[in-house]
Amino acid sequence: MMDSPLLITSLIERAENYFPNKEIISRTQKYMHRLTYKELGGRVRALAHALEELGIQKGDRVGTFAWNHHRHLEAYFAVPSIGAILHTINIRLSAEQLTYIINHAEDKVILVDEELLPAIESIFHQLDTVETIIVMTDEERVPASTLPSVLHYEQFLEDGDTTFVFKKDMEEKEAAELCYTSGTTGKPKGVVYSHRGLVLHAMALSLADTSAVSEEDVSMPVVPMFHANAWGMPHAATWMGAKQVLPGPFPTPEILARLIETEKVTITAGVPTIWLVLLKELDKKTYQLDSLRGILCGGSAAPFGMIKAFEMKHNIPFFHAYGMTETTPLALFSKLKSSQKQLSEMDKLDIKSKQGMAVPGIEIKAINENGDIKRDGREMGELLVRGPWIADSYYKDDRSDDSFRDGWLYTGDVVTIDEEGFVKIVDRTKDLIKSGGEWISSVDLENALMAHEAVYEAAVVSVPHEKWQERPVACVVLKDDYRSIVGQQDLYAFLEAQFVKWWLPDDILFMDALPKTSVGKFLKTALREEVKKQLTKDF
Amino acid sequence: MMDSPLLITSLIERAENYFPNKEIISRTQKYMHRLTYKELGGRVRALAHALEELGIQKGDRVGTFAWNHHRHLEAYFAVPSIGAILHTINIRLSAEQLTYIINHAEDKVILVDEELLPAIESIFHQLDTVETIIVMTDEERVPASTLPSVLHYEQFLEDGDTTFVFKKDMEEKEAAELCYTSGTTGKPKGVVYSHRGLVLHAMALSLADTSAVSEEDVSMPVVPMFHANAWGMPHAATWMGAKQVLPGPFPTPEILARLIETEKVTITAGVPTIWLVLLKELDKKTYQLDSLRGILCGGSAAPFGMIKAFEMKHNIPFFHAYGMTETTPLALFSKLKSSQKQLSEMDKLDIKSKQGMAVPGIEIKAINENGDIKRDGREMGELLVRGPWIADSYYKDDRSDDSFRDGWLYTGDVVTIDEEGFVKIVDRTKDLIKSGGEWISSVDLENALMAHEAVYEAAVVSVPHEKWQERPVACVVLKDDYRSIVGQQDLYAFLEAQFVKWWLPDDILFMDALPKTSVGKFLKTALREEVKKQLTKDF
Repeated sequence: MMDSPLLITSLIERAENYFPNKEIISRTQKYMHRLTYKELGGRVRALAHALEELGIQKGDRVGTFAWNHHRHLEAYFAVPSIGAILHTINIRLSAEQLTYIINHAEDKVILVDEELLPAIESIFHQLDTVETIIVMTDEERVPASTLPSVLHYEQFLEDGDTTFVFKKDMEEKEAAELCYTSGTTGKPKGVVYSHRGLVLHAMALSLADTSAVSEEDVSMPVVPMFHANAWGMPHAATWMGAKQVLPGPFPTPEILARLIETEKVTITAGVPTIWLVLLKELDKKTYQLDSLRGILCGGSAAPFGMIKAFEMKHNIPFFHAYGMTETTPLALFSKLKSSQKQLSEMDKLDIKSKQGMAVPGIEIKAINENGDIKRDGREMGELLVRGPWIADSYYKDDRSDDSFRDGWLYTGDVVTIDEEGFVKIVDRTKDLIKSGGEWISSVDLENALMAHEAVYEAAVVSVPHEKWQERPVACVVLKDDYRSIVGQQDLYAFLEAQFVKWWLPDDILFMDALPKTSVGKFLKTALREEVKKQLTKDF
Repeated sequence: MMDSPLLITSLIERAENYFPNKEIISRTQKYMHRLTYKELGGRVRALAHALEELGIQKGDRVGTFAWNHHRHLEAYFAVPSIGAILHTINIRLSAEQLTYIINHAEDKVILVDEELLPAIESIFHQLDTVETIIVMTDEERVPASTLPSVLHYEQFLEDGDTTFVFKKDMEEKEAAELCYTSGTTGKPKGVVYSHRGLVLHAMALSLADTSAVSEEDVSMPVVPMFHANAWGMPHAATWMGAKQVLPGPFPTPEILARLIETEKVTITAGVPTIWLVLLKELDKKTYQLDSLRGILCGGSAAPFGMIKAFEMKHNIPFFHAYGMTETTPLALFSKLKSSQKQLSEMDKLDIKSKQGMAVPGIEIKAINENGDIKRDGREMGELLVRGPWIADSYYKDDRSDDSFRDGWLYTGDVVTIDEEGFVKIVDRTKDLIKSGGEWISSVDLENALMAHEAVYEAAVVSVPHEKWQERPVACVVLKDDYRSIVGQQDLYAFLEAQFVKWWLPDDILFMDALPKTSVGKFLKTALREEVKKQLTKDF
């Protein structure tokens, strides 16, 4: 067979070649920006050429600090096309974390949104390697800045050649992208993605039996492009020639619903918290969302009640997926087997609330102290993953050995696997509650609480206990309409019907909001502190 | 990223893991044989182990000489799993060709169907390397044979361990399979497929935007498993966990229609001649074929009239694909773009009768003496293909340099490419008719003739001409009911409405049948001889 490397540039080339007139639509704060794949291709080539002219060489890191929009998409293809590494920087990190990862990645250039420039300005004096800041803006002028000199993205592009020819003599295992995990503890850890990994991952997303990304789709990643490649949707959608909708800065639930309606979005992806606020919006106002053939949900477990609301109340198919920054991210996908389609609606929702099967190309297993767990839906073990788009180490980080052992990624997620092979995330290893030698799943309790009609959000954390070692405590945010109506007793009664007594939380605390990570996951470290404070106050 | 090789064994492992109870159904001459993926997996492992015990080592060639059935499928996975190379031998070759390819491949073992054993017996004394013959039979006894000793497949399997563990320490670029082209001239040429090529090819077949092979499918390859991996359908169907129907020995149109009906086949694949005879059968009898979501057709161009009959008369979606032994084979796939769905039925059929766009992962271009051809649907050039599942040479053959140059496979097919990028095969380079310095497409004339209601089959060949260098002559087989009704004048009148005068054939000869290659393509070399004979007789 030919020694044809799997390269990211082949994705954009196919879109230019076969779908030159399909559109990429970016929402800006002022208007909807539209460009075609033909135009996108020219701009990608110009950016690649201009970066080369600027002196960017193979292996150099080029950062992006940006929302989801077409310029970010251009960088997705242009930077790796010249052998450089695209470092997508999480815009929600603290100044300290930002400084750490930019210095750790040794970024030479940062492409930054005008709205986000102040965050870079405030830490610029601490950045060791950054030579050039290029501002992505819709305005014609270069924005005022405290920095000595910033370049204007559009002017920078004007110096590039729109007919620049992509290199073909690259190795597929060369690095293409770099993304840091949004860890809840410790310093962020970098994951390097190869061309090969990203191309195979895009193929996996486009299989009929997974998310089936197709030319017929209108793809809208709500998951940020700075977070694990926006789950590969920009790659897959470009390759297949799908229309793309990029929701731009500060997308509210109303903005998202309106975009789905007006641009006839068929497939969208994001974390549970996004869909929770979208559901709230759909309760308030009526939108025409029947173009949607699927919501992809991952990042953390989607509560049963939410899946039910989308599927049964709004008639929108909901697909649970699982992955992490280290897995590019798609590793598991939950789609009913043909044999399961005859089941009752409730049974089907039960299956859909699991994280699903390994996608073709990925291998998994789950182990505990007794070895591989039984596929009985009950025994718990840590999920291990391997495959061609799974990281094998963290970038220049001596913590790699904790997570990568014997050729497997140790995910830190505790799971069960049922008879059909469907994986269900039970907890993070470090969030499992060990009570009297037995394990209690905080996620099971959270999902049960969130299925109550009065509950908007719920998180369960462990508190130290003299006798039992650890005990669960629940933190609950009630929906506005229920705040004066529902109390602890109602929720206890609700839980008692579903759990053995020793699983019930020792306390249920009501809060106005729950602390979350930069990507919308519950921040359990902060929550534990908060709980400790409240419990101390109470006594 | 992890250095996880793409290996064929991962396909069967996934089916065992997630779809243990899905069935593979093989038609035998006596009954329908059914086994599950769980059973298949055990038998694959047993065969792999037994072959290793027999002394088969990495790189050894193991031949199959068989119809489409579950034992052939077992060999598909077992042989490459131990690093050996599966050589699928075309059962329709002449004794001379058979002897040549078995000696050229240096097969050590041949797995042969009982029905086909005589063909091997008759040449066995000329085979230099074959040490073991294993007969695949449904009978319990070893068949009588002129050979010194033959093994019984089922008894051979009994010695193998059904829990044999597949090796993971193989390189993905290692050879997995070997198949010889069914060339119409010269000795057959061998093509070696790597694990990587076959896995990527199976992924390409399973994309939503190509044939979308899925767990929900019931897949029936009519294309023989000895011919270019049965177009990869056994690989893709196994990987995705689809139910498979393998039509066994001597499948007639009636058998195929009955299998589609009773097993609810959703997707099937074969050459145009198969679908031509199936259409005839559907005219005779009524079958319930509404489970079919797609007929895949390739190998040679499907006539417009046939596509129209399937799509409009029988309401069966018809997909043109293009490939060759050298391309694993899927290279082009014809599926309407979303923008084309609003066109008239006739315009859509016109598009469907083209071979389509390069599938994701494959690059193409077409060149003539002026360089790359224009995408105007008119300029003709030779199609060039490259990508990770395209061969880069013929196996131990000094004719490689004719076909593989500058990193491209020169297909020998003359094509046009339209504004949308859809490729249309115009002719084989060697079948184009050069008349007075201009080119005439034999395929265009053939398709036009075959669209006439009276014509069953038509082929057009060139005959030497003193003044014009070459001129076309048509060879036509009329449908039985039209033999006494339709004559030359009717067909000339029909063609005159569609072509300029100098394209019209100098003669139209009526024949009882057209000579075909072992895979159902018109054998134009033989036809030219036949035409020469008839024309000389006439004058």
